[in-house]
Formats: sequence, structure tokens, C-alpha cells
Amino acid sequence: MNNGPTLPIRRVAIDTWRENVVFLHRDCPVVRASGFQALAKVRVQANGKSLIAVLNVVDDDCICAPRELGLSEDAFERLGTEEGEQARIEQAEPAPSIAALHRKIAGERLGHEDLHAIVQDIAAARYSRIELAAFVVATNQFELDRDEVLNLTEAMIACGQRIDWQREVGAGPVVDKHCIGGIPGNRTSMVVVPIVAAHGMLCPKTSSRAITSPAGTADTMEVLAEVELPLERLKEIVRATHGCLAWGGTADLSPADDILISVERPLAIDSPGQMVASILSKKVSAGATHLVLDIPVGPTAKVRNMPAAQRLKRLFEYVAARLGLELDAVITDGRQPIGRGIGPVLEARDVMQVLSNDPEAPQDLRQKALRLAGRVIEFDPDVRGGDGYRIARNILESGRALAKMNAIIDAQGRRAEPLSAGKLGFDVTAPADGTVIGVDNHRLARIARLSGAPQVRGAGIDLMVKLADEVRAGQTLYRVHAQFDADLEFARRMVASGCGFTLGAADQVPRDYATSPADAK
Amino acid sequence: MNNGPTLPIRRVAIDTWRENVVFLHRDCPVVRASGFQALAKVRVQANGKSLIAVLNVVDDDCICAPRELGLSEDAFERLGTEEGEQARIEQAEPAPSIAALHRKIAGERLGHEDLHAIVQDIAAARYSRIELAAFVVATNQFELDRDEVLNLTEAMIACGQRIDWQREVGAGPVVDKHCIGGIPGNRTSMVVVPIVAAHGMLCPKTSSRAITSPAGTADTMEVLAEVELPLERLKEIVRATHGCLAWGGTADLSPADDILISVERPLAIDSPGQMVASILSKKVSAGATHLVLDIPVGPTAKVRNMPAAQRLKRLFEYVAARLGLELDAVITDGRQPIGRGIGPVLEARDVMQVLSNDPEAPQDLRQKALRLAGRVIEFDPDVRGGDGYRIARNILESGRALAKMNAIIDAQGRRAEPLSAGKLGFDVTAPADGTVIGVDNHRLARIARLSGAPQVRGAGIDLMVKLADEVRAGQTLYRVHAQFDADLEFARRMVASGCGFTLGAADQVPRDYATSPADAK
Repeated sequence: MNNGPTLPIRRVAIDTWRENVVFLHRDCPVVRASGFQALAKVRVQANGKSLIAVLNVVDDDCICAPRELGLSEDAFERLGTEEGEQARIEQAEPAPSIAALHRKIAGERLGHEDLHAIVQDIAAARYSRIELAAFVVATNQFELDRDEVLNLTEAMIACGQRIDWQREVGAGPVVDKHCIGGIPGNRTSMVVVPIVAAHGMLCPKTSSRAITSPAGTADTMEVLAEVELPLERLKEIVRATHGCLAWGGTADLSPADDILISVERPLAIDSPGQMVASILSKKVSAGATHLVLDIPVGPTAKVRNMPAAQRLKRLFEYVAARLGLELDAVITDGRQPIGRGIGPVLEARDVMQVLSNDPEAPQDLRQKALRLAGRVIEFDPDVRGGDGYRIARNILESGRALAKMNAIIDAQGRRAEPLSAGKLGFDVTAPADGTVIGVDNHRLARIARLSGAPQVRGAGIDLMVKLADEVRAGQTLYRVHAQFDADLEFARRMVASGCGFTLGAADQVPRDYATSPADAK
Repeated sequence: MNNGPTLPIRRVAIDTWRENVVFLHRDCPVVRASGFQALAKVRVQANGKSLIAVLNVVDDDCICAPRELGLSEDAFERLGTEEGEQARIEQAEPAPSIAALHRKIAGERLGHEDLHAIVQDIAAARYSRIELAAFVVATNQFELDRDEVLNLTEAMIACGQRIDWQREVGAGPVVDKHCIGGIPGNRTSMVVVPIVAAHGMLCPKTSSRAITSPAGTADTMEVLAEVELPLERLKEIVRATHGCLAWGGTADLSPADDILISVERPLAIDSPGQMVASILSKKVSAGATHLVLDIPVGPTAKVRNMPAAQRLKRLFEYVAARLGLELDAVITDGRQPIGRGIGPVLEARDVMQVLSNDPEAPQDLRQKALRLAGRVIEFDPDVRGGDGYRIARNILESGRALAKMNAIIDAQGRRAEPLSAGKLGFDVTAPADGTVIGVDNHRLARIARLSGAPQVRGAGIDLMVKLADEVRAGQTLYRVHAQFDADLEFARRMVASGCGFTLGAADQVPRDYATSPADAK
């Protein structure tokens, strides 16, 4: 069977970002003989392993010689062989699930086996980036029905690692808290986890780094402590402190989702079905049994109005129930950023102010974190419904939350020298007197990213006023921080085309539909 | 404004197949400072020009040093600068039409301006491959309505070159003949063009090379003559002979379509709207005023049944009418390949047999070509409806078609040495007695491609029997030709998993719904 041609492997040091790419020279006899075309899919076999890759044709011997088989960094690692080893190459059959992908593109509903086959192929890197984009768009358009979302979620869980906290927790709940994203500065997890852990519940929080936002929880926590921790270290920390705030990327919890995100991010597609499957697969794989979910709603949030928020909530609830995950989805005010800082260092400062009961602490972050912590605490069978908020506030005000946070930071590895905000900056001021009637989450996130966040930890935005505040002409709305001239210039240009704040009359402030007064206390 | 960082340009000799790629070293100060991520879109400016590209991160100084800006072959050519020239790089704003793309993804109907903006961005290579895939899938799913198809076609015409045959033809018609594809061996153009040109009509046929098939008309004509001809040469040839059979790729007739095809091909998506826009934009840009369109229908053709063929015909007619293009769409028998040969050399042999009135010539190819040529000839205002077929047959039988073909071949540049069929091969035989009741176009095309066609001109398939033929066990169904051992082995494996022929009882032969008896005479 296997008498195709072989070529020695060469590692081509190009990061193709989760896509397997094979580089062959245009004069390679295999290219000439078999008529491989650029973007053709090929199967490479070596050392008893095989992978599917996309072909790029090279015209420079320095990158890949005519009788070599070049592999991108991703492909080289995946094949796990040595340079110089002989590899066999042939035209690839389409991945087994491509027929199902085409049925989805044609608008059909997919069943359990189809979705499992697709997710397996994705996790095994058998889809090209074009095929991934097709899947993302097709499932976005013909919206997945709730059983398809359930199947997709189960398939994602099935192909990843799953953390078992049995030894750490026994039969008790493993609690978690997650936000669907889209609100800059929304670092409630870093307040909720220490409160809940101080209450004695197991809260092993794994977070992502920023994908399109100026900071993820992992980026912000990294300002204070190590976050890239091997699973065994993580388990020790959780045994010792009941909590952690770590990066989840080391655990390979949902490899198919990680690959899909590499396409969803540049396309800016985040459909309800994909969101639910992505979040719930990672939470179940991370071992959570109880989850409080934060769904912010607002004109520039991911969810724009209450009916959409309710639909999304019901979809989360349906899938979670069938996965045996206890879910409490909370619709929150997403009209503007939470806290003052946007960017890792500035957000970490806000969090520590709240935990320290600093009178300067941003009250919106404090209130929201207490509300969510209260909901998590009410997963405790010994806590009466409605008592959670009060318990959370007591833990915070007593200093026990701060002590717990310090214990977690020390356990993960405290950063030796504190980071500070970027040394460059400029103020953005109000052009006229008026009331703040709009704060654009997207625009502020983009400005903060252009200023350098999250890679430049001290870059970002510091908000001086919020929705409904009255301002005078020339008063500072926010300050942009940066570390490098070029970044400052990028941010300045973006501000020039729109600063993200709208001023108007006091009666034009949009209502907060999400937070009922009863919720806050 | 333009005080972003600059770096010297380096050409990275990788063929990224119509996608602009920028390579930056992971230690490049711009990457570090601005937090560019792999797959981020960047704008590169040099020499008064600019382009949008996708970023790949490199870890090897030999490909691109930390203080260099690497450009893929496509990007380097597009920017048209020299190596070493300083280029400015910054984060790219999304292409102007991305908002419209997202509205299409969300299922909205797009208007004239939206589609023009999208096509302009595509033609200017401002879309990443992921965005192209999103457009292709979105327009495939929410099927474009006929005005959207019209707008898309017009936009594609607007951004390409347009050939004017005024000087060659005066006020007379410029005729053309095109097939929507999907039927191996369907080389009627190479019979139709000489017949029609011999009748005195101007028929400057430009064709594509094979995209997913084992041979395009340009590939097959290239067996006999030069096909890559500059526009001025083409015009001389058409002035002298009234016809040509050239490759259309040199003329840049529909650059947006060429780019979209680079994504449609690996996705195997060919939706009606995209097909109509692709074909009609190229025909109008090539200067055709009258077009006969071949729509084959059959169980393994692109169009599976008569209702679908009728819908597609109406869509072609609607758009053509609004473009001022006279269209005669003919639904034909697409149940099996046309002629005997599949692959450039074998198809060229079939064509020359028909033109030479060789008694061995495949009669199905002869009949179909005469039928289509007759329809083209009826565009002649001096020809009575129904007389076209007879006129075409007279031209063929008199030898005038062959003489015209030889004149065209000589004008384009006759190939010095004739090519022959691949020297390697094997026979595929009937496993039992029976009647041929199914011939799978897809499977035979794949086998022919694996055998090396179209790159290996002599590779392909030679059919010995066709639909409704009775065969005995062990009788040869077809012969596979190849030039290289590896190709032969690929083809053999594909045959082993299904040879493309189904045998059964005489009454199981599928009916030909497309060809009415009146049509054939």
C-alpha cells in the first residue's frame, strides 16, 4: 500500500497559528509528478504518525530544498519526529466529516454522530483554515438548534482532557464563575474567587488570556502572580487555599474549541451556539459542577437587549442541565466598562482596591463582584436563598477576602516587582458640558488594545467618569497609558476618529434593564 | 500621520496562492511593541502604495530577520517595490466592506453598493482567506436573490479588464459557447469554435485551465498549440481566422472571481449565484455579445435534476438580459462523460477524430458539438431558426471545420512534437456480465486527476464502454494512463475503492431527460 514517494523532513520556523502547513519546493519531483497545487491538502506520514496539512509552494532552497519536505512549526510538533527523518506524502482524502460539513453548509440539521465526527476532525487538525471558516459561518447562519449545541458541547468535552477534583473536594461542589465577555475591565472573578474560597468552597478558576479584548483574567492575574501552572501544582494550590486564578491553556481542556477560536477571532463571529459550546465544554472539562454565568446586556455589549439575553440564558440552561452542570445565569448591566481600569495593570489595581476595602475602589466592580459571589455562595446547601450577598460582603469587609487573595498569589508565585502603568499617555477630555449618555465598550477596547494592552501590561485606559456623570468642557474623560511611542500614536489616531463617549442630556441616559434593585442587596 | 515604524522589505519566496502574507520575526520590535498576533491583519505601505496582509510569525532569521519585513510572493508583486526598500507597517483597519460581509453572514440581502464594495475589496486582495471563505459560505447559504446576483456580476465586470472586439467585428455579434462544467471529457468548444468560425462568425473563445477537473479546454488545446497569448496577438489571430482557443487567464477579466475561486475550489462550493456571476462576468469582460450555455443535468453532474436545471437557466437568463448579453441556455445530457478520453491528450485525440470525420470518432461528442454549434450559428440573423444544426454538420462533413482548426492551431503556434498518452497504465474490467447503468462523473474525474491529469498531459482515462452498453465479465471498462509510478499507484488505490461504473439490468439505465429527440437533428 504505502509505496508513495518519501522526502526528508525539514522544520520551517513559521508559526502558522494552528494550521498544519507543508512546504514543498516548486521543483520538488513530488509536486511536479503528482500535480499537487498550492492549497491542496496532503497527508504526511512519518514514524507511524500521520497528519493532514495544506500545501504551500516554495521557490527558495533556503526555506525548503527541492528534495525536502518542509513542515510548519505546528505541523512539525504534531508529527513529533526529527528533522531529516523520511516522510511519505500523498494527496489527502477529505477529512471523514467533510460530507457532514457540506450538509451543514446546505442548511441541514446535524445529528450526534456528525457533530462528533466534525469536532474530532477539528481537534485532530484535519480541517484547513478555509474549512474551519466554513464551519463557523455555516453554524452561525443556520443557527444550531439546542440539541445540536448539546451535541457540539459533548463532542468538544469528549476530545479534551478533563480535570477531576475528587481528591481535593470529595463529594462537595466544585464552583466556578464565568462571563460571556465583551465588557472591558470586568474583572469580577479576581474578587469572587477569594471571597468564595474564603467561605470554604472549592473554586479552581481557570481563565483564558485576552482573545480580542484588552485583558483576560489570566493576563490581569499575571500582573500579580504566576498563572502558567502545571496541573499537579494547580491541584496542590487548590488543596491548600481552596481557590486559584490560573491560565487554562496548559490543560488542553477543549482542543477543538481552541482551534475554532483561531478562526472566530479574525471573523469576529461569536454565535450563541458556538459560545455555549465553547464555555460549557471548558467548564465541564475543568471539573466544575456548579457555575454562575454573567451575561451582560447593553447597546455595545455582546448581547444587545433583554429578549436576546433571555434566549441565550435558556440555551445555556438547556445544555448545562443535560451535562449535569448546575447553572445560575445572571443577566447584568453591560452598558459600559466595569471599574476604572482597562488593561492588565490598571484592572489589577481596581481589583486590589476592592479587596482592600479602599474607599477609592470602584463601587460598580465591588457591587457586581459581591452580587456574583453571593450567587456562588448560594450553591452551598447550608446557605439560605438570598443570604449569599450578605455573606460575601461580610467576607470582603472583614479582610478575609484580601487575606485569601494574598494566600492564592503566594501559592501561585507572587511577582517579585510590581508592574506599573505605562509611562507615556495622554488625556481625553470632554468637548462640551453635558451628561455621559453613552460609553462604547468596543471603541474603548480597541483604543486600549492599540495602546498596547494586553501584551504591554501597563498599557490601557483609566476612566475618570462613567455613565450618567455630569462633565464640564475640558474635563478629563479618561487617560490613555502606553509604553511605546508607536502604540501611543495608534491609540491617538483611533481616539481622533471617535473617543467612545457620547454626551447629552440627563434624561438620555439609557436604562439598566438587567439589574433589579432587589438583586443589588 | 505616518510616523509608524519602518522596516526594510524582504521577499520571502513562498507562494501563498493569492493571499498577501507578511512575515515578521517573533523578536521584531514591531511585533513586540504593538502586540501583533499571528493571523492579525496589517497594512504595509511603501513607495506610495499600500496593501493589507495577514501576519505570520517567523522564528528563523534565514527566512526573515528580526528587523526585516518579509512579503510573500503575491504580496511582493502586488506592492511592486524592491527588496531593501523601507516599508511602514501598522494594524489594519478592517476592509471597508467587512460590515456588509457581516450583514450577509447574518442573512441580510445586500444592495448594489454593498456588493460593489465587497467585490472591490476582494479584487484588491483586502480580504483574508478566512473572510473569503466566510463570503463564499454566506452567499451559498442565504442564496443570493437574482438582483444580488446581477449586482455581484456587474461588480465583478467593473473591477476587471474588458476586451473590445469592435475593430475586429464591427457591429456583428461576438459569439461564445460555455459549459457550466462537471462533465469529464466535455470538449465541445474545440469542435464548436472551428465550425462557427468557418461559418464566418467571430468566436474568440477564452477558456480556463482545469480547477478541479482533469482537464480544462485550455489544457487540452495546449496539447496542440500555444494558449498563453498576449491580448494583441489574440486580436491578430481572431482577425485572421475569426476564432481562437486561448487561455483567458492572461487578460485579468474578472480578478475578484479568480480570487474567490481560490477558496471555492478547496471548499468544493459552487452555488448558483456564484456560478452565474463567475461565468457571465468573464464572458461580458471577454467581449461576448451572444452566448450559448451548456447546462448538463444528471445524477453525478453539477445539476442533478430538471427542476434545478430550469431554475439555474432562468437565473442565467435574468442576469444576462440585464447585462445586454444574448443568451441561449441549453440543458444537455450530463449522465456520463462525453467522448472517450478524460485528460488533455486523450481529449485532444477525440476532438481531432471528430473534426477529421474519423469513423472511430466518439459519436456523442460529435452530436453534442453539432447541436451546440447549430445553436450558436442561429445567432446569425441570416440563419432561420432550426437550420443551425444542418449548417454545422455541413461545415464539419465538408472538412472546413478541420481546415479552420488547423488554421487556428497554426496561428496560435502549433506544438512541434505531438504528445502521447502516458506510457504506464492498467485496465479496469467488468466484475460480472451486465448493462452499464451508472457512470460516476466525480469518481472518474478523481481517478483521472490522481493518474496525473491535467499537469501530466498524457495521463487520464480512456473509456471503452458507455451507459447502456452490455458488457461481459472481464471486459475492459476503461484504461488508466499515467506517466509516473506514484501517480499510477494513487489511481489504482482510488479504483480499488470504487471504479465509477455500476452494472445492472437493461431497464435500470437512467433516462436522459435533457435531450429531446427533436433537438438532436
